Amino acid sequence: MYQAKNPTDSKKKDVSKRTYKKTDKNTANRKTQASKNHSTKKQSDKRTYKKPQTPKLPVKIIPLGGLGEIGKNITLYEYDGDMFLVDCGMSFPDEEMPGIDIVIPDFTYILENKDKIKGLVVTHGHEDHIGAIPYLLKEFNLPIYATRLTIGLIEGKLKEHRLLGDAKLNIVKAGDTVTLGKFTVEFINVNHSIPDAVAFAINSPAGTVIHTGDFKIDTTPIDGNVIDLARFGEYGKKGVLALLADSTNAERPGFTSSESLVGDSLSHFFNQAEGHRIIIATFSSNIHRIQQIINEAFKCNRKVAVSGRSMSNVVAVASELGYLNVPENILIDVSDINQYPPEKIVLVTTGSQGETMSALHRIAFSDHRQIEIIPGDMIIISATPIPGNEKLVSKVINELMKRGANVVYEKMYDVHVSGHACQEELKLMMSIVKPRFFIPVHGEQKHLMRHSHLAEQVGIDPKNIVISQNGDVIELTKKAAKSTETVHAGRVLVDGLGVGDVGSIVLRDRKLLSDDGIIIIAMAVDRRTREIISGPDVVTRGFIYVKESEELIRDINEQAADILERCYIYNVRDWNTVKTKLKDGISRFLFQRTKRSPMVLPIIMEVNI
Amino acid sequence: MYQAKNPTDSKKKDVSKRTYKKTDKNTANRKTQASKNHSTKKQSDKRTYKKPQTPKLPVKIIPLGGLGEIGKNITLYEYDGDMFLVDCGMSFPDEEMPGIDIVIPDFTYILENKDKIKGLVVTHGHEDHIGAIPYLLKEFNLPIYATRLTIGLIEGKLKEHRLLGDAKLNIVKAGDTVTLGKFTVEFINVNHSIPDAVAFAINSPAGTVIHTGDFKIDTTPIDGNVIDLARFGEYGKKGVLALLADSTNAERPGFTSSESLVGDSLSHFFNQAEGHRIIIATFSSNIHRIQQIINEAFKCNRKVAVSGRSMSNVVAVASELGYLNVPENILIDVSDINQYPPEKIVLVTTGSQGETMSALHRIAFSDHRQIEIIPGDMIIISATPIPGNEKLVSKVINELMKRGANVVYEKMYDVHVSGHACQEELKLMMSIVKPRFFIPVHGEQKHLMRHSHLAEQVGIDPKNIVISQNGDVIELTKKAAKSTETVHAGRVLVDGLGVGDVGSIVLRDRKLLSDDGIIIIAMAVDRRTREIISGPDVVTRGFIYVKESEELIRDINEQAADILERCYIYNVRDWNTVKTKLKDGISRFLFQRTKRSPMVLPIIMEVNI
Repeated sequence: MYQAKNPTDSKKKDVSKRTYKKTDKNTANRKTQASKNHSTKKQSDKRTYKKPQTPKLPVKIIPLGGLGEIGKNITLYEYDGDMFLVDCGMSFPDEEMPGIDIVIPDFTYILENKDKIKGLVVTHGHEDHIGAIPYLLKEFNLPIYATRLTIGLIEGKLKEHRLLGDAKLNIVKAGDTVTLGKFTVEFINVNHSIPDAVAFAINSPAGTVIHTGDFKIDTTPIDGNVIDLARFGEYGKKGVLALLADSTNAERPGFTSSESLVGDSLSHFFNQAEGHRIIIATFSSNIHRIQQIINEAFKCNRKVAVSGRSMSNVVAVASELGYLNVPENILIDVSDINQYPPEKIVLVTTGSQGETMSALHRIAFSDHRQIEIIPGDMIIISATPIPGNEKLVSKVINELMKRGANVVYEKMYDVHVSGHACQEELKLMMSIVKPRFFIPVHGEQKHLMRHSHLAEQVGIDPKNIVISQNGDVIELTKKAAKSTETVHAGRVLVDGLGVGDVGSIVLRDRKLLSDDGIIIIAMAVDRRTREIISGPDVVTRGFIYVKESEELIRDINEQAADILERCYIYNVRDWNTVKTKLKDGISRFLFQRTKRSPMVLPIIMEVNI
Repeated sequence: MYQAKNPTDSKKKDVSKRTYKKTDKNTANRKTQASKNHSTKKQSDKRTYKKPQTPKLPVKIIPLGGLGEIGKNITLYEYDGDMFLVDCGMSFPDEEMPGIDIVIPDFTYILENKDKIKGLVVTHGHEDHIGAIPYLLKEFNLPIYATRLTIGLIEGKLKEHRLLGDAKLNIVKAGDTVTLGKFTVEFINVNHSIPDAVAFAINSPAGTVIHTGDFKIDTTPIDGNVIDLARFGEYGKKGVLALLADSTNAERPGFTSSESLVGDSLSHFFNQAEGHRIIIATFSSNIHRIQQIINEAFKCNRKVAVSGRSMSNVVAVASELGYLNVPENILIDVSDINQYPPEKIVLVTTGSQGETMSALHRIAFSDHRQIEIIPGDMIIISATPIPGNEKLVSKVINELMKRGANVVYEKMYDVHVSGHACQEELKLMMSIVKPRFFIPVHGEQKHLMRHSHLAEQVGIDPKNIVISQNGDVIELTKKAAKSTETVHAGRVLVDGLGVGDVGSIVLRDRKLLSDDGIIIIAMAVDRRTREIISGPDVVTRGFIYVKESEELIRDINEQAADILERCYIYNVRDWNTVKTKLKDGISRFLFQRTKRSPMVLPIIMEVNI
């Protein structure tokens, strides 16, 4: 890990001349500016700094992910030939991508512009903002700038991918500024469901762009670091060219509750659970939540055990870096929990989304090595199901209840608050930043549209609102926003170790196979005479329960033999034609007979006799 | 269709001596009692009516579906050897049942008791209450009793399945009573999201059981038929043995809004859409909703077209039976809508759940023969996504927006209300009916639990609350509820024309196939020498994009050849052993190389040379 150096050769304007407020543990007035690193140095010779700060040049904003979708956030900024990236996230596959592990951005355009890109700045340590970094670094080892916890979490990822050795990681504090070619980027503290989250003020001669990242406004956050609205306000007063803001909660009216609210609820349920074990599932990255759980456990004289790989990792990193304040001797190993009476235990676990491999899922289905539900256990699911996970979460809740647990879940009580700004906060941000142009980001079309309606409400000219798509090149000058060009942007599917080797054809086949299974019609033929010397044999998988469908299998066999017979009579000897006739004939027969359409796969083995 | 006859031989107590309230269009004081039908007659000889009304005999309630799940509602009642069924619904497959069309109850226990079962009474015409009737009737043609609209909808289903000719359908009005062996069943009007819904008061010598079916309390329903709370109250005063009530919305606090509220919202959006086309998606069975849409269209001088097969069917049935009041000349054919200016059109369509084959989905993805989005179209999704459909609905909304439509959807405004009672209504029902025993039904474990907590709140003794599972036999007497016995209950999967031929093995294979695809290793061998004379050939589907993975395919081929070589050297000649070795070896190789686990299927063709 590298601390960002304070270079002396910078000619850029320093925008961070201000005292960081006292509530911030990381109080510092350090100006952190990235030295020209290895890869930029190579380039600096070629660059001829012709007419710096030419006011007519536009700043280009190129979203390569995160628009028209939730997740996979990545944005490229360009000014006068200098580029840098904001975030590099992944997303989760939807039901149309069976078997896929994760989805990452298509890096084609980035790799085409390697020489121009000065670095990657990261807003916070969530997967949808850092998850694709290892995949990018395998192709292009650019310097990374982020706050301390975010760097800590990135390090963990890079270690897993064996990329840590060469990585150029730079810790930057909120309030500090990084220089990236002709850009300077100021890190501004925001609230979110993970500590150390920042927004960026991206300064170039074309003007300032505010890029919020994920944020909410929490006036009573757990770590005391209230979002630095004053700094956003200062920029607003000076004049902001454009605001790119988080649209995740643009559909939700009102104001997102403070994380502190959850503490009160937890306190209530800890009291109610007296005499019983407590199991709490939450997002592993929600360190403030975990802190509040530890605080309550300490008050109630309970030990805390942690279950689930990602949860254990994050607790370790966060404790080590001082983001988690863990009283001595309170943490115990999960394998030791049965040595304590249930009423002395709090178990913090993954699985708040009902994920089938998670600790909570395994506990619910009696499939966990160390933990079995004891009737009376108090189980708190401290999270809201992400769209698409509702049924998974319900299944886990139902199973836990059947085993006698008391389950506290979504909407029952305030055991979870969102990490994203709701409508009133979004409007507040716009009215403080007062941008000339507004570009809603992080959201599907419906979120972007709702966010743009909010912008109209606070008086932003509808003509200056840009609803964009991944791959659009948005060119901004003080006078106008235009988006005429597009670049290559898309998704790459990761399945096991394969990156990009599963495309639409493979997915289509998986979908077909899962709907009605496969029927294989295999035969051996004499290469010379083209006569069938073995088969046709019918093998099915995922189509029908064969043992109870012998008649149908026999009929398929007969049909196949008939088709082959006809091919032989009409002297069709080209195997591809024979295969097509088999495929079509058997498909038609099966649809008539069963109203199903399994994949039909003829296999013809040629034998030299 | 048969009207229930008024038999004179009934010795049963008539519980329906009351005047039906005037707001009911179907005002009638008719006592409808089912004559002993064909199948019961056969039995009546055997039955010896020993000591009628023996007070000590219990009434047995046997839920065969609808507990621990949403949908597939079916309950068997038994008293002294006489049985009847309440509802016979289907449910939709979840993500663990790929390719399955619908799920129906396992009828084993019903068919074992054919001779005892006097009939089927149906609460209302929704799929989760009538959807499995055709499948039951194929095996057991029992008489069916339901209200007029419900019978109309059942007729439609039976027609499709070519079962209408022999069906014994009996129309019963709310307020009337049906005799089924030693039971009398009174139909009591309730509110729901479909007209003509009823609850049942099930009277036997063991006492009265109230079975609500789906209900809500709507004091301003569209058809004026307010739920007959007075009748529930009369039963409550006389004493009710048990209440079985709808738990669907037991998690939701408060009171469900009136359907009338939707009319106000629609009115608002019809005004706002001036000059533009209006497209409204809703549940086809929500006839009151469709009525309100037609009313608004009439006011605004717009024509109404209907798109989607189920929507057209329901509109036809409901108009014919007088449940839908359609002004003359307002309905036009969907193929004619382009003959009118957009501002003169309202299109009512299916697809409010984002279903891929629905009209709205096809419109959204520009795949509809007659309808294409015109920018400015006002689209109202007048429904809430059923859990599991959230993402599908979002996709449709996003696509419609991208094409320039204004989309009004869930939570934005009051364009939908639920058809199920929320917590306050559920408590009201309990406090009116004042049952000795309470059995929450229609819901997953979490809904049943929440409903039982509500029962405790209104003062029902927790010992008298029975949370049950499908197949439990609940025996009730005035003194006690016990549930010692269980009977066969389960689910049967319908896939195309196949009923029950897809079981857990086929589903497991489909899941495996969809995750990582299939690799087929085919070869031909000399039957005599057992030498390989062709292959091994490797064919994959859904595993990898073959054209870009030639090396891997070559390596699989080599691995397979190696394994076969080793089998040959070590004299392994049993083809099953060879297959197992191939399967294990190739699976291991692929997992190491790709971290994927496709299905590996060796095929060996024996050839006589």
